[in-house]
Amino acid sequence: SRSINLAVIPGDGIGQEVVAEGLKVLSAVLPQDVKLETKEYDFGAKRYHATGETLTDADTEALKQHDAILLGAIGDPSVPSGVLERGFLLKLRFLFDHHVNLRPSKLLPGVATPLAGEPSIDFVVVREGTEGPYTGNGGTIRKGTPHEVATEVSVNTAFGVERVVRDAFARAQARPRKKLALIHKNNVLAFAGHLWTNIFNQVAAEFPDVTTEYMHVDAATIYLVTQPERFDVIVTDNLFGDIITDLAAAVSGGIGVAASGNINPSGEFPSMFEPVHGSAPDIAGQGKADPTATVLSVALLLRHLGYDAEAARIDEAVAVDLAERTGKPARSTAEIGDALAVRVAG
Amino acid sequence: SRSINLAVIPGDGIGQEVVAEGLKVLSAVLPQDVKLETKEYDFGAKRYHATGETLTDADTEALKQHDAILLGAIGDPSVPSGVLERGFLLKLRFLFDHHVNLRPSKLLPGVATPLAGEPSIDFVVVREGTEGPYTGNGGTIRKGTPHEVATEVSVNTAFGVERVVRDAFARAQARPRKKLALIHKNNVLAFAGHLWTNIFNQVAAEFPDVTTEYMHVDAATIYLVTQPERFDVIVTDNLFGDIITDLAAAVSGGIGVAASGNINPSGEFPSMFEPVHGSAPDIAGQGKADPTATVLSVALLLRHLGYDAEAARIDEAVAVDLAERTGKPARSTAEIGDALAVRVAG
Ligand SMILES: CC(C)[C@H](C(=O)O)[C@@H](O)C(=O)O
Ligand SMILES: CC(C)[C@H](C(=O)O)[C@@H](O)C(=O)O
Repeated sequence: SRSINLAVIPGDGIGQEVVAEGLKVLSAVLPQDVKLETKEYDFGAKRYHATGETLTDADTEALKQHDAILLGAIGDPSVPSGVLERGFLLKLRFLFDHHVNLRPSKLLPGVATPLAGEPSIDFVVVREGTEGPYTGNGGTIRKGTPHEVATEVSVNTAFGVERVVRDAFARAQARPRKKLALIHKNNVLAFAGHLWTNIFNQVAAEFPDVTTEYMHVDAATIYLVTQPERFDVIVTDNLFGDIITDLAAAVSGGIGVAASGNINPSGEFPSMFEPVHGSAPDIAGQGKADPTATVLSVALLLRHLGYDAEAARIDEAVAVDLAERTGKPARSTAEIGDALAVRVAG
Repeated sequence: SRSINLAVIPGDGIGQEVVAEGLKVLSAVLPQDVKLETKEYDFGAKRYHATGETLTDADTEALKQHDAILLGAIGDPSVPSGVLERGFLLKLRFLFDHHVNLRPSKLLPGVATPLAGEPSIDFVVVREGTEGPYTGNGGTIRKGTPHEVATEVSVNTAFGVERVVRDAFARAQARPRKKLALIHKNNVLAFAGHLWTNIFNQVAAEFPDVTTEYMHVDAATIYLVTQPERFDVIVTDNLFGDIITDLAAAVSGGIGVAASGNINPSGEFPSMFEPVHGSAPDIAGQGKADPTATVLSVALLLRHLGYDAEAARIDEAVAVDLAERTGKPARSTAEIGDALAVRVAG
């Protein structure tokens, strides 16, 4: 009999509320014969204040025992900027080798976009998750003096670039339009740019049915607001991916519906799924948060574990729910979760 | 009597056409007593193909003799990506210490924006121009092998950050709203992020009447499409500035109207002014290019040289011209230039 052994990290702010709804929908969508086990972990600001810990060795050992991780949100204004980001989120991405950071953008009917007209948006960004300027390499000399010099080193390896580029080609090939865009800044960042471009072109030769294009990251931001329909699959480096996926989320309905997966495709370590929105402390505890992004992250999680039909049922339920919102009064976090749970069970 | 000794670099593609109109408007707006001398330089793809040169020592010596530089566009598909960018444009920014890369974004009446509603956009980005990931530091080992490693080093100095932050504060203080946003990614790029944030906060203490905020670059892309009216002055690093100013141009009417200045505020070396659009080889030589961004760059040039009233006349003429376009047939490059020349002379 099948089973899912899930690590659940509600985290900070609205994390607790949205994760509860994500689990509600997950339970509702799973077939009877799939045994769902969950274990909750207390990472985040509260634990940090109480113990000074963000993620210990014992924690990572415990997390390794799970099939996947569902994360709400980590981050609180009471913790200095960067501490939880680097001490928990990025640490886990690196330790668990989450090199495929998957971020789909789809503008669903009934969802508001800041763009004029009725753009048709349906693409997915494959963001590298373990290299680039995110490695923490670099340093500071003469800190705090008028002669301070601070460096940040972007580290890019053929190994790291090839595996994510390959993953993106495979995803592009599996989609109807079969298009893949590489986004970089190879006219300026020539060392990393050459590596990325060269490997991209090499792997492209193995996927002759995939149409490719190259685009500078600055130009990509223009296309994302003027011709978002142009994109199908995008592959890009860690920092460019961070920037353009927030923009992509904004134009395709906002971070309220943006889901993401921190994926280790080999399965050596558990992958982690999380809504793109943060902990939103300003609305925490009020039942106001929209759990949709978390529910869509659950769909990514299910697809990663091979439950494609169940993932599709969630996507479908969310699409119908969003389409029916127009003109209706706002619902609470739990009401939206309940409605989605009913739909996916149905 | 006053004089302007201008270096003119038409460059590639539509550069020639738009620069001709920029000069037409410049001549028309200048008072009789100001002597305008211009000298044309042949930098760009043609010269590169003929001689292999992008910018020689003799060239930079010659350029140094001018009060300012007007550039059309550099870049052609026949030249490998990066060669002219690094060999000419970036080289000049570094040699002439163009540390204030100034990029205003203003959505003028009658101008189309990809954003829904009628956003009110009027901000200016002060992008650092001589540091960050643009320094060309970094390298490659085992090039072309499966074990290649490529690095890019972002170099940030207290000297370089403080002067551009100070410039941005002064600009913010001179504007009615007096708001300044620092855009960085200090939760991840902690070395450079700390330097930027620390200096920003220190300088802020000297400008108590300027309201400040800090924003991560990823979040900034969201605000640029959902709340662009939020911004007044932005200061940011070289690469983040590159990315967000293209997005800013896109939402405020497109790169057809986006002007920029590569400024050396001390005047030690001439500053360079250029439209943000590139050489657009696909429409070159057809009289189709819109010279407005070049004309607005001439206004930035005049303001830099202290001709504030003349700069204001150009801005005003462009605003009226743009407002009157709706519903009219498209005009040629020269027709738009003629119309603007008449208006500024008037
Ligand atoms: C919180 C931060 C470290 C993180 C990132 O930069 O990757 C976030 O912006 C994201 O996109 O997941
Ligand atoms: C052409 C390129 C080198 C340049 C840059 O990256 O600065 C351009 O994009 C710009 O913004 O002026």
